[in-house]
Parts: sequence; structure tokens; C-alpha cells
Amino acid sequence: MATQGQVITCKGTFILDPRTLTISAVAYEPNKPLVIEDVQVAPPQAGEVRIKILYTALCHTDAYTWSGKDPEGLFPCILGHEAAGIVESVGEGVTEVQAGDHVIPCYQAECRECKFCKSGKTNLCGKVRSATGVGIMMNDRKSRFSVNGKPIYHFMGTSTFSQYTVVHDVSVAKIDPTAPLDKVCLLGCGVPTGLGAVWNTAKVEPGSNVAIFGLGTVGLAVAEGAKTAGASRIIGIDIDSKKYETAKKFGVNEFVNPKDHDKPIQEVIVDLTDGGVDYSFECIGNVSVMRAALECCHKGWGTSVIVGVAASGQEISTRPFQLVTGRVWKGTAFGGFKSRTQVPWLVEKYMNKEIKVDEYITHNLTLGEINKAFDLLHEGTCLRCVLDTSK
Amino acid sequence: MATQGQVITCKGTFILDPRTLTISAVAYEPNKPLVIEDVQVAPPQAGEVRIKILYTALCHTDAYTWSGKDPEGLFPCILGHEAAGIVESVGEGVTEVQAGDHVIPCYQAECRECKFCKSGKTNLCGKVRSATGVGIMMNDRKSRFSVNGKPIYHFMGTSTFSQYTVVHDVSVAKIDPTAPLDKVCLLGCGVPTGLGAVWNTAKVEPGSNVAIFGLGTVGLAVAEGAKTAGASRIIGIDIDSKKYETAKKFGVNEFVNPKDHDKPIQEVIVDLTDGGVDYSFECIGNVSVMRAALECCHKGWGTSVIVGVAASGQEISTRPFQLVTGRVWKGTAFGGFKSRTQVPWLVEKYMNKEIKVDEYITHNLTLGEINKAFDLLHEGTCLRCVLDTSK
Repeated sequence: MATQGQVITCKGTFILDPRTLTISAVAYEPNKPLVIEDVQVAPPQAGEVRIKILYTALCHTDAYTWSGKDPEGLFPCILGHEAAGIVESVGEGVTEVQAGDHVIPCYQAECRECKFCKSGKTNLCGKVRSATGVGIMMNDRKSRFSVNGKPIYHFMGTSTFSQYTVVHDVSVAKIDPTAPLDKVCLLGCGVPTGLGAVWNTAKVEPGSNVAIFGLGTVGLAVAEGAKTAGASRIIGIDIDSKKYETAKKFGVNEFVNPKDHDKPIQEVIVDLTDGGVDYSFECIGNVSVMRAALECCHKGWGTSVIVGVAASGQEISTRPFQLVTGRVWKGTAFGGFKSRTQVPWLVEKYMNKEIKVDEYITHNLTLGEINKAFDLLHEGTCLRCVLDTSK
Repeated sequence: MATQGQVITCKGTFILDPRTLTISAVAYEPNKPLVIEDVQVAPPQAGEVRIKILYTALCHTDAYTWSGKDPEGLFPCILGHEAAGIVESVGEGVTEVQAGDHVIPCYQAECRECKFCKSGKTNLCGKVRSATGVGIMMNDRKSRFSVNGKPIYHFMGTSTFSQYTVVHDVSVAKIDPTAPLDKVCLLGCGVPTGLGAVWNTAKVEPGSNVAIFGLGTVGLAVAEGAKTAGASRIIGIDIDSKKYETAKKFGVNEFVNPKDHDKPIQEVIVDLTDGGVDYSFECIGNVSVMRAALECCHKGWGTSVIVGVAASGQEISTRPFQLVTGRVWKGTAFGGFKSRTQVPWLVEKYMNKEIKVDEYITHNLTLGEINKAFDLLHEGTCLRCVLDTSK
């Protein structure tokens, strides 16, 4: 491509530190920290891939960092981690993708070489973690983004709220070029997280009883995963009863609103299921709900999986008796999927109509409308909002 | 036997409520609540077995209830749950054991009929739980023990600090009659708990790194279980360095005393093992140590098993991030062994010299010396004290 080896200037959405809003000479209004600017995106270095992002969705993790409540948040940065695009150019030594490949950037890398990848027990590749955790690239420990010469941090190793981004090659999943990028961008985070929590982490068996706390995108993906795994009772729990109709379409066949009960929700679920569920999933990020999700599990074998991300510093607790009597407490990140290997497989499953994706997309906007998209994220009616980054 | 169908009067060691010491007209000195008395043991009713206890050991769970700190403790009661004896007589409908059989009473029943037994996922049979949990027998919801006409509660469905006891038939494991009862009595609790935590609950694989918190009987049995499972590094952690020499004999090949370090013990273990252990076991019953045991596990796959029993009301806690990044928190009761089925198998393993038992017995006393035995339990040099109940 003509842009290969050149700095690309494109539209990018970056945020300043919402706690200070003092960086850079540009004046920004408080309470509106997302600014669309011309961002310079440097060429990919060795082991890196520059991607033209075509579509990106928003996820609550973006909103959490955007809120300024994440103590590990680094600003100014370009958020975004659920997206799809086309490789613009690759750096030295990159062999598995080339310019023109259709790809999904993966915040969870897969190098196939580190002790994590080789263990066969986890998807938590450690190869580039020391860089992505602090908003930079491995090769020179610097950012590829800048505005007027000032560096802008990367986010989660993906930074997809931009027309172009640079990621490590171990963080790029090459997918079927016929797959619609405005749909499969969702396979970068929320949908796989829910499906994998069921398939990989909990390993739900046919006939199981399942409780799902929180019926957002991830909770609905858990429901779909449970349905395809053959679960018989799929109980959706949410404080917004309006969500039940949508949830039914994803497999939820019973609905409980904690507000309708005086008893703690774990007791409600235990009573409803003759002793508790076989599997529960917390898809909110609330530590009290995580406890309820564990404690509504059946004695002897109930397994609870934490899927939601709690705010920093918060802790989960329970009586150890809950575990001694056979309950198991686990968690999942990206649903346990090996990203480079399995995201393409998930795309295939979508193309074969074996998993839903379109049904999670409730809104379509443009990158220029990202502040509106963030507002939508906090409304009960929005599951996923996909942004067309060309506008 | 001549005693069949008759009330047996024998020596029994029962405790009054250590919090009040007011029950019954007999005067008892405070601070010495264990009293040896003539206890009347009623004949077994339908589904019950009366056992002549020959040997009983003491366990910390007895000491915990004896201390008065267990809010569910019922007094007066006869403690004891790690023992061996011979069936004296059986009640109506009992077919699996008969008078003369050598048996180990099992505080964890196995009925093979309830949803727990049939699940194939747990050893936590629920058949007689509603009675054993409140110190009585299922058949008439009463106790078989009395002193001067006043009922004395059962304890854990076993009450082995007595020359005779009555238990439910689902709580009796029939064993090889040639096995030495003064040794295999230990297979009623501590040793199987440790071995099973490794074999059944954690399922430790060859080459694993293992951390064991607390090197009492259960911790040492965990070490032995880990060694037989092929673990390569078996790290024993105890605040009493004198325990290391004994622990070596059970398979511990590294020792860490938290008192020798300024850092939290989880950090010490993580540093020592390049990221954490594959499996950890808490064998103390301390909720802070339970947290440390979880947090010293390796990201991505480390599994921590709670084996110790915490005091009532205490809670465990951690950051959910620990689980989301792949650690698993579990617990075990009686090591996950199906009692009636597997205790006889453990006796066979002992007879074939495949597991240690003798090595845990550091003291031998008589039932009449039980107060001395309780004192020993709190000393670092005592693992198990076996009481000859004939004296």
C-alpha cells in the first residue's frame, strides 16, 4: 500500500485523563473527555501489524477506564478493543498476516511459545503483557500514536477507537475475508467471553441448571452458550425486567428479578432449584453479586464463574464452608479462548449460523458519534453499538 | 452377642456445654469439661448399627467443638469421629454389616441412593444429614446415649469417645478383619482428608509444584498424596520449623517458615516458583492463610483447595481478579472419598504398604486419659494420639 512505512494521520478518538484534563495545550471541556483529533500512527516495527480499523464496538471495560475509576488507566490514550479491520502493513519478521488480510485485533494475545500458551491450561498468553499493560509496544517500549508530537498511550494492546492502530503480531486473528466486518467485530470481546465461560471454563453439560446474573451482551452470550451446551434450565437474573423478552431469544427460559423478592437472591435461586444450580455466571462486575452467584450453587458440585470485571480494589468474600462443601469458584478472561486460533473458528461458526452475532447489535453509529455511543452503553436498551470508523 | 437388644452401659466421654456447664445435677469443675461416666447406649433401631469402639483418635474438629466456639455445638454430647471397632449388633433392615464385622464409623455417610450419591460428582451424601447435624438418629429423632436417663447428643454421626456407639448403617465402612484397628482408626478422618484433597479434589498431575500450608496430620497426608501423585516440588509452609524433619518423611522437599520473611507468604512462594504453584492446600483452618494459599497459585491454572475448617462466622476474601486470571478456589470434605466404598479400599492400600498410617501416630493413651490427649493435640509434637477405649 502507498501508506506502508509512512506515518498515517487519521481520525482517532482519544481521551485525556478524566481526573485532571490538564494534559496538552488544547483546551477540552470537562465532562466531555473524548475528543476526535487527527492522530499520527507510526509504521509497525518488528513483530507489529498496522491495521485499518473499519468497525469497532464499545464495551463496558472501555467505559470503566474512560470514567477515570481504573487506577491503572493511563492517559491520554486511545480506547477500544472490540473491532475488525484490514491489515495495512506489517513490520519486520511478521509472517502470519500480510497487507490486505481481514483481521480481528485481540486484547488477549496468543504467542504459542510462552509458558502460558504451552501449558495447555490457559489462554492467558504472557508474551506482550509487560507492554500492553502499560500502554506501549514491546519493541521500543514506546507508543505508535501521537498527536502533535505528544505520545498517546495504547489501551489493552488494541486501541480500536481509531481509523488505524498498531498491534503486536501475536494479537491479530486472521479471519475469513468474506465475513462481514461490521458484524464479526463483536467476536473481539463480549460474545466470545460469554460463550467461552460456558464452553471452556465451566464446561456445562447437557441437562444442567444454569443461573446468569446480568443480561447484557456477555450474559446473553452465556445464555446462548448454555443453550447450545444443552442446559435445561437457564435462569436469567436482572434488576430490569424489560430485559427478559430479549433474553428469551438467547435461551433464557426463566427470569428472576431480585427486586421482586425480600430474600437474598441466592436463597431465591436455591429454593427455585431444589438446592441450587449446577453452574452460575456473574456477568456484571459487582462483588456482592459474585458472592450471590457462588452461594446459589448446589452443594457438592455447583461451579460459579466470575465473568464480569469488578472495580479496582473491590474484594469478593464468602464463608469457606461454601467451598468445603463442594462449590467451586472460578473466573474467565476472554472466555478461555485461545485468541489467534479460536477467533477465526468463532467467525466460521457465525458464518455457518451456529452462533448469533447480529442479534447483539442494537445500534449503529459513526466514530464521530462515539460520545453518544457511550451514553447508549449505559441505557438498558443497548447491547452493542457498532461504530463505522470511516465517518 | 449377649448384649444384643439390651441397653449397654459402658464408659463414655461426654462433654457438657463448656459455655455454661450448668446442665445436669452433677457438679463439674469448670475448665475440665470432659467427664468419663457410665453412659447408657440403647440398642440400634431400624437402619442403625451399634459398634464396640476399640480405638479412637482425636482430631482438631473435636477440640473445636469441645472449646465451645462452635455455635452449632450441642451439649452434653459425646465427641469423637476417627475410630475403629467391631459391630456389636444391628437394627432391623441392616444388611451390609453384621455382628462381628470390623468397621470404621464414617462421619460422612454414603447411602448410594440420594441425589448427592447418584450425582457422581460428590461424596457429600445427604441421607442422614438432617439428624447427624443436630446430634440425633433419623429413626425416632432421638439420641441413643443417656446418662441417668438424661439424653446425651451424638456428634458428627459417630461419637467415638465411648466404648459403644450407635451410628446409621450408611455411615459404616466394613473393612478387612485382619487390619490392625489401633492403626486404621486413622482412616476415619485426617489421613483420607489429606490424600483425597490431592487425588480427588485437586487431581494433582506428575511434575506439579505444590504448596502445603500447615504441617499437621492433614498437611502431611497432603504431602504424601502429592508425592504419590508424582509432584516434583512439595513446599511445606509452617510457622514451626521443627516440623520440617518429620515433613520430609512424608514427601515435603522444601520448607518455608513465614516468620523468616518480611513479605507476605504468597509473594514469597510466587517468587520461589517463578509465578506460583500449580496446586496449594490450606490445612490449618485460618482464613488469612486460605487467601495466601489462593494467591500463591500460578496465574492461568493454579488451583487452591481449602482443607482446614475455619471457625464459625469467619470469611475468606480476595480480589476477583485472582479468579478471572485463571486461579480456581475449591474445598474438600473427607478428601472427596466415598466413605463406605473407599475407606475399605484405603485400608487395603495400607495393608499393601501403599500408604502410611503408623507414621502419624505419635502417642498412645487410654480413653481415661482423654484430657491429656486433648492437651497433646495442641502441642507441635503430636500428630495423632490413639486412645485404647478398653481402659
